[in-house]
Amino acid sequence: MVVAGQPCPIGRAADVLGDRWTLLILRSITAGATRFDQLHNDLGASTNVLSSRLAGLVGAGVLTKVPYRDDHRTRHEYRLTDAGADLLPVLHALARWGEDHTRSDRHTRPMKAVHAVCGAEMPFGDHCPHCDRTVARTELSWLRPWRSAAPVPLAEPVHD
Amino acid sequence: MVVAGQPCPIGRAADVLGDRWTLLILRSITAGATRFDQLHNDLGASTNVLSSRLAGLVGAGVLTKVPYRDDHRTRHEYRLTDAGADLLPVLHALARWGEDHTRSDRHTRPMKAVHAVCGAEMPFGDHCPHCDRTVARTELSWLRPWRSAAPVPLAEPVHD
Repeated sequence: MVVAGQPCPIGRAADVLGDRWTLLILRSITAGATRFDQLHNDLGASTNVLSSRLAGLVGAGVLTKVPYRDDHRTRHEYRLTDAGADLLPVLHALARWGEDHTRSDRHTRPMKAVHAVCGAEMPFGDHCPHCDRTVARTELSWLRPWRSAAPVPLAEPVHD
Repeated sequence: MVVAGQPCPIGRAADVLGDRWTLLILRSITAGATRFDQLHNDLGASTNVLSSRLAGLVGAGVLTKVPYRDDHRTRHEYRLTDAGADLLPVLHALARWGEDHTRSDRHTRPMKAVHAVCGAEMPFGDHCPHCDRTVARTELSWLRPWRSAAPVPLAEPVHD
């Protein structure tokens, strides 16, 4: 679904993305979370805040709900659409700015992007300086040392 | 001022920027607005919402207040700091996503980035395909045809 709105594309993007929980949800889903409970634990958002933001992102066509069977019940997981996967440059731009202009109040090694093919750390973006080439999303991992010792591949979108 | 927070740089950036009005304010100030009344007219935010967001951005070190004389009174204008100017890649990433995945409900020509040196339109970013070189912020303009017929140079930061 394409969201319609004001003439300014930054303004239209802000209509969809201009919310702290929304950005955190998209970050966590890009890093592999898919289920409501995972997001609830990851983010510490209240269930009603999380529900409303997820519903908004599904409505905007950024996430899609995919059914799965759990304990004889059908539940839903949240997956990126192509439009959601295309938010990677936004998340990477936020990561670069956050890295340059804010700091962690915990002592932990910083988040890194990793080119999974060569294993080298690379700047947040799509260029691996080690290989000197453009890196596809499928070759990108995020290392978040405060969550896990190994880099995690980025979530693949569900094609619409 | 450097904002301290969670280990994730995307999360820390979202703490500062994850708000619709905040993004719209930064967009408008980057496009040359400096005064409270201008922003109020541009955005249609209520004065208390606008005041609180501006105060938050000044507190986070993204904007700075600069005094000016108006009608024998000292007033303040809001200007980007270096950290605020460094948000350009975030705004450009939002513009690209907004352009690709949302649409205007008004009939108007779309926003464009313009390389002021050669006059060519260029993708939102820092590379001019016409000149095949990296474009400094000082050489960049935004054309927003629904606001003005001519491209507007991007606001320069006040160096801290």
